[in-house]
Amino acid sequence: MIFDSTLRDGAQSNGISFTVEDKLKIVRDLDYMGISYIEAGNPGSNPKDAEFFNRMKGKKLKNAVLTAFGSTRRCGIKAEDDSNVRALLTAETPAVAIFGKAWDFHVTDIIKTTLEENLAMIYDTLSFFKERGKEVFFDAEHFFDGYKNNREYALRVLETAKEAGADHLSLCDTNGGCFPDEIYEITKDVCEKLDMSVGIHCHNDCGVAVANSIFAVKAGADHVQGTFTGFGERCGNTCLTNVIGDLQAKMGMICVPEENLSMLTRMAAEVSEIANYKLSNREPFVGKYAFAHKGGMHIDGVTKAPKSFEHISPDIVGNRRRFLTSEVSGRSTIISIIQKIAPYIEKNSKECELVMEKLKEMEYLGYQYEGADQGFELLIRKTIGKYKPFFKLETFKVIGQYDQQVRLTPEELSKETATAVIKVMVKGKSEITAAEGMGPVDALDKALRKALEVFYPQLSTVRLTDYKVRVLDSKAAAASKVRVVIESADEEDSWSTIGVSQDIIEASLIALTDSIEYKLIKEIEKLKELY
Amino acid sequence: MIFDSTLRDGAQSNGISFTVEDKLKIVRDLDYMGISYIEAGNPGSNPKDAEFFNRMKGKKLKNAVLTAFGSTRRCGIKAEDDSNVRALLTAETPAVAIFGKAWDFHVTDIIKTTLEENLAMIYDTLSFFKERGKEVFFDAEHFFDGYKNNREYALRVLETAKEAGADHLSLCDTNGGCFPDEIYEITKDVCEKLDMSVGIHCHNDCGVAVANSIFAVKAGADHVQGTFTGFGERCGNTCLTNVIGDLQAKMGMICVPEENLSMLTRMAAEVSEIANYKLSNREPFVGKYAFAHKGGMHIDGVTKAPKSFEHISPDIVGNRRRFLTSEVSGRSTIISIIQKIAPYIEKNSKECELVMEKLKEMEYLGYQYEGADQGFELLIRKTIGKYKPFFKLETFKVIGQYDQQVRLTPEELSKETATAVIKVMVKGKSEITAAEGMGPVDALDKALRKALEVFYPQLSTVRLTDYKVRVLDSKAAAASKVRVVIESADEEDSWSTIGVSQDIIEASLIALTDSIEYKLIKEIEKLKELY
Repeated sequence: MIFDSTLRDGAQSNGISFTVEDKLKIVRDLDYMGISYIEAGNPGSNPKDAEFFNRMKGKKLKNAVLTAFGSTRRCGIKAEDDSNVRALLTAETPAVAIFGKAWDFHVTDIIKTTLEENLAMIYDTLSFFKERGKEVFFDAEHFFDGYKNNREYALRVLETAKEAGADHLSLCDTNGGCFPDEIYEITKDVCEKLDMSVGIHCHNDCGVAVANSIFAVKAGADHVQGTFTGFGERCGNTCLTNVIGDLQAKMGMICVPEENLSMLTRMAAEVSEIANYKLSNREPFVGKYAFAHKGGMHIDGVTKAPKSFEHISPDIVGNRRRFLTSEVSGRSTIISIIQKIAPYIEKNSKECELVMEKLKEMEYLGYQYEGADQGFELLIRKTIGKYKPFFKLETFKVIGQYDQQVRLTPEELSKETATAVIKVMVKGKSEITAAEGMGPVDALDKALRKALEVFYPQLSTVRLTDYKVRVLDSKAAAASKVRVVIESADEEDSWSTIGVSQDIIEASLIALTDSIEYKLIKEIEKLKELY
Repeated sequence: MIFDSTLRDGAQSNGISFTVEDKLKIVRDLDYMGISYIEAGNPGSNPKDAEFFNRMKGKKLKNAVLTAFGSTRRCGIKAEDDSNVRALLTAETPAVAIFGKAWDFHVTDIIKTTLEENLAMIYDTLSFFKERGKEVFFDAEHFFDGYKNNREYALRVLETAKEAGADHLSLCDTNGGCFPDEIYEITKDVCEKLDMSVGIHCHNDCGVAVANSIFAVKAGADHVQGTFTGFGERCGNTCLTNVIGDLQAKMGMICVPEENLSMLTRMAAEVSEIANYKLSNREPFVGKYAFAHKGGMHIDGVTKAPKSFEHISPDIVGNRRRFLTSEVSGRSTIISIIQKIAPYIEKNSKECELVMEKLKEMEYLGYQYEGADQGFELLIRKTIGKYKPFFKLETFKVIGQYDQQVRLTPEELSKETATAVIKVMVKGKSEITAAEGMGPVDALDKALRKALEVFYPQLSTVRLTDYKVRVLDSKAAAASKVRVVIESADEEDSWSTIGVSQDIIEASLIALTDSIEYKLIKEIEKLKELY
């Protein structure tokens, strides 16, 4: 069973904050994918979460059990008199997860109470919720550190939870300092002693949270807590995309319905998108480069037999294979891209040779096409004569004007600082126009599209979705070459193009021009397919 | 022993490309930190690496052994007739790492030769290098997959390498599909059978490369191959910051000289910076948030006893604790910088409070002073009233003009594209001037200094030595905020300043202005000391 805490422990991530709407969307997606438990917030600690649980009332989930999170009662009062405990009840979720201290040192030195009172806090709170018909998880905070320090007490904490009626015990490596073999031994001991549903909750401070979770499962744990793509305090929680990939795609255990495993990549992208967090390209299973091959020998191997350089088939987790182009990638990668444009061109043809040479020349100038597939496609078209320009740039000027004030407030910063003037020629007709922008690149983008939309209204659906700058040879300081990579999208696709120049405006202009040309070629190709 | 492959396997990362200068810098840093082996490139496959090894000739390393990487000879020819083998020799490194196939399937189905010829290829190549006095690593590619498929043959591959005189065997999980328990069992078997130096080389496709490497060490491996912050093909290689943190800070093994362990955080930042790769804030041990506490209970706990929510003390690895909500973190760091400027200011003073608040505000805007100490010094001066402007910017304009031609040749690219017009006022006198440059930032730099040198001739010794751009929030595309960090130098010092804006020209202007002001303040302070 997968116990997702993206919206609770994941929301503790620095820099990540979900709105109520975000939470509703993520719950819908997680449920749809078939996650078993969704721990979606702490209604007692945070009014936004309280509102979220209110909005969830009456909503039916298909697969998941909605879970609210909270603490044991405070020292010295009754569970029913504790406002957090009561808030948790008003969330009206079928399940609750209650955390309590399992490390004696934390009891005596941090919350400063007696070991006995801590047990009573656990017992009272869990029985309170059991009496009210909830499915109850007990999160044994700092369990592993506690076990290592005072095994007897740590186990008494769990026994108390069991006696109070807890349905599941979750063993937490709260500080993320444990290793797989310790986790295995300790979890095994607990499973044997307690003989009930036991789960694992890890943090990634040593970079081994995923391995720790897998070893707990091997030792007998039946549920894994974690978050999507590993959000969480400090170094994050166990990454569930890795856990699901490992347990289900590699080890054959069922975490989500088999037919939903291929949703993994989309799910990771979706959660990252909502959290406004850039998913790492290197992310196992779901990253853009998880099945991307660059070296010529790797590409050659995968072409002969995918298993030669792929541990699983990418489609199992909804990802796809990519061959990246660079001078180290071989002729066979390049010919496969050429043939998409001109299927009749062969591996040993003059055209293939020309493209290889052009690629080398461009890389020498600082171009790098591995992140800009469509830019490379355009380069091929230009090289093999499958290209006709859609417009000609007649004049192009940018003017930036600045006063002595450093602008600091968001209001000041939203002012436009640059103006671009552009004249383009399309099929004998010219169009001159101007636009203002936040900086020269923004002005340039706006002016170029404004001038061209007169001729190509379909460009109005294109928007820029990413903009990256890399200074090459930064020792040349202000006269350094820069490489600009632009990602554009319309309703259907996204594409990446590239420009290099010592002048950032020119580099951006090249990438923008290619982006627009790619869109127009795409439209023509679509029409060709239709007629 | 740590075997670093950041510059070889790490350079296979999609989107990462090191210049020769970058490589020289990273080698210097890795050596300084005390890494045992630095595998810095493949001279046979790539002219840039050949040039790098040429430039390394005659350079003495303090701690590390420089290693060049290459393949076994091709099928059917002699080792000495293989151009890649010969290229490897001309690198003139004390050590070489030779990879060969250890998975029978790869031999027969991918490189399509016989199992016997593969053994001969390994034997011949390794003895070729042993006869020439090299320390030889044999990288057994796909060893674990090979062992699982045909244990006998995989072991024969290793025995052949041993017979040929290899000094070390490195067992590779090339496809990254193995788990810690398999790695442990198989490595143990190899260590017992071969009784020689054995190492581990993992990839992170299942998110467990670090755990795999640790388990190999537990099974008897004496060296770990990996890369800084985990660069590498697909999902990357074993992350050495994690491995060093785990083995040395947690388990007490010595990977680098004990006094250098605290360089870990700086090292990770430096390599990421050079690679222009954003180090994850969540990166274990070395990330900005690795010891950052957000929740009130966590901050309370850490204040009472750090171990309550920290698995190790952050200073062991050169990181620091951060309290994110209260911003009380760093007061002692900040006061130490303030006292350099105004020694009479105390920790609990209003001034210190003001600087803390200003810092918070600037970080919110996207400033990050960790790489711009002198920029931070100027910020402090401005905040506590120890600052008097040296000039006033009256007008500032940049004009860029582009024609329809994409410029490609070095000759075309050396033409100036932008003009800057600037008017400054110094002590009631104004000066207007203009300059051309390769792009707006270059023009800006030239014009600003030309105008100010009239008043401050000492500026003529200042030159820009580095220029870096980072797009923040790249989802805002062409209107994204950028952070510019500029490094300047005169004959005596170098200093870094920073600017942030949605407009790259403005961001550069801020950083350049700070750089000039820092130089002028520095001159005044020097005069004060003299008289």
